[in-house]
Amino acid sequence: MYVLNNAAPAETGLPGLRHSTLAGSSDGLNRLSLWQQTIGAGAATPPHRHDCEEVVMVRSGRGELHIRGEVHRFGPETTLVIPPGVDHQIINSGGEPLELTAAFSTSPVEVVLPDGTPLPLPWRS
Amino acid sequence: MYVLNNAAPAETGLPGLRHSTLAGSSDGLNRLSLWQQTIGAGAATPPHRHDCEEVVMVRSGRGELHIRGEVHRFGPETTLVIPPGVDHQIINSGGEPLELTAAFSTSPVEVVLPDGTPLPLPWRS
Repeated sequence: MYVLNNAAPAETGLPGLRHSTLAGSSDGLNRLSLWQQTIGAGAATPPHRHDCEEVVMVRSGRGELHIRGEVHRFGPETTLVIPPGVDHQIINSGGEPLELTAAFSTSPVEVVLPDGTPLPLPWRS
Repeated sequence: MYVLNNAAPAETGLPGLRHSTLAGSSDGLNRLSLWQQTIGAGAATPPHRHDCEEVVMVRSGRGELHIRGEVHRFGPETTLVIPPGVDHQIINSGGEPLELTAAFSTSPVEVVLPDGTPLPLPWRS
């Protein structure tokens, strides 16, 4: 399958977070995963980290990247670079949905909480 | 730098192809590159291949992926998965600009023509 039809973003069980996996290990990929997410106004990802490189493309909305004790504000037409193994959190600090596309340098992607606990993902990766 | 401001897409010297690198090796990445491209109506990439995984997200427009002697048509809300080492060509077959975001599993990305000739890239990768 070379052409995939994008799945509609769906509720995840994580508050305010909608998700669709655009491409991942079940599409034959080992070194790339692409996710599309919407974080609702006032919502946030949990603080977490991955053992891979991550790039987040901001499609619309405004937010904050909390990383290494710093707060980095971002808006549309920006791209976030998140190094491997570094705890981070993305917060919607605007009044509109925050629309993101995230790329990871592995597939499947593992998510680990700051205390080292793996976070089982409620979506395919 | 965790937050990058997206560069405006610029002419590349390749006919009909505008490009901006969203993130790559100069942003500290080794295993991810993200490119944003616009292929004008009637234009196409040259046939080429990469020694890495590639995922292309179609933001708008319609086109054809030519790969392994097959033609795969695609439109908006689709995602293309291109395996490493396989020659491919993306053609804008619609009347509107074809807007793409491409993710690669390495950085910098190398482009090779079907006869094995490396294609020097006119953009940072």
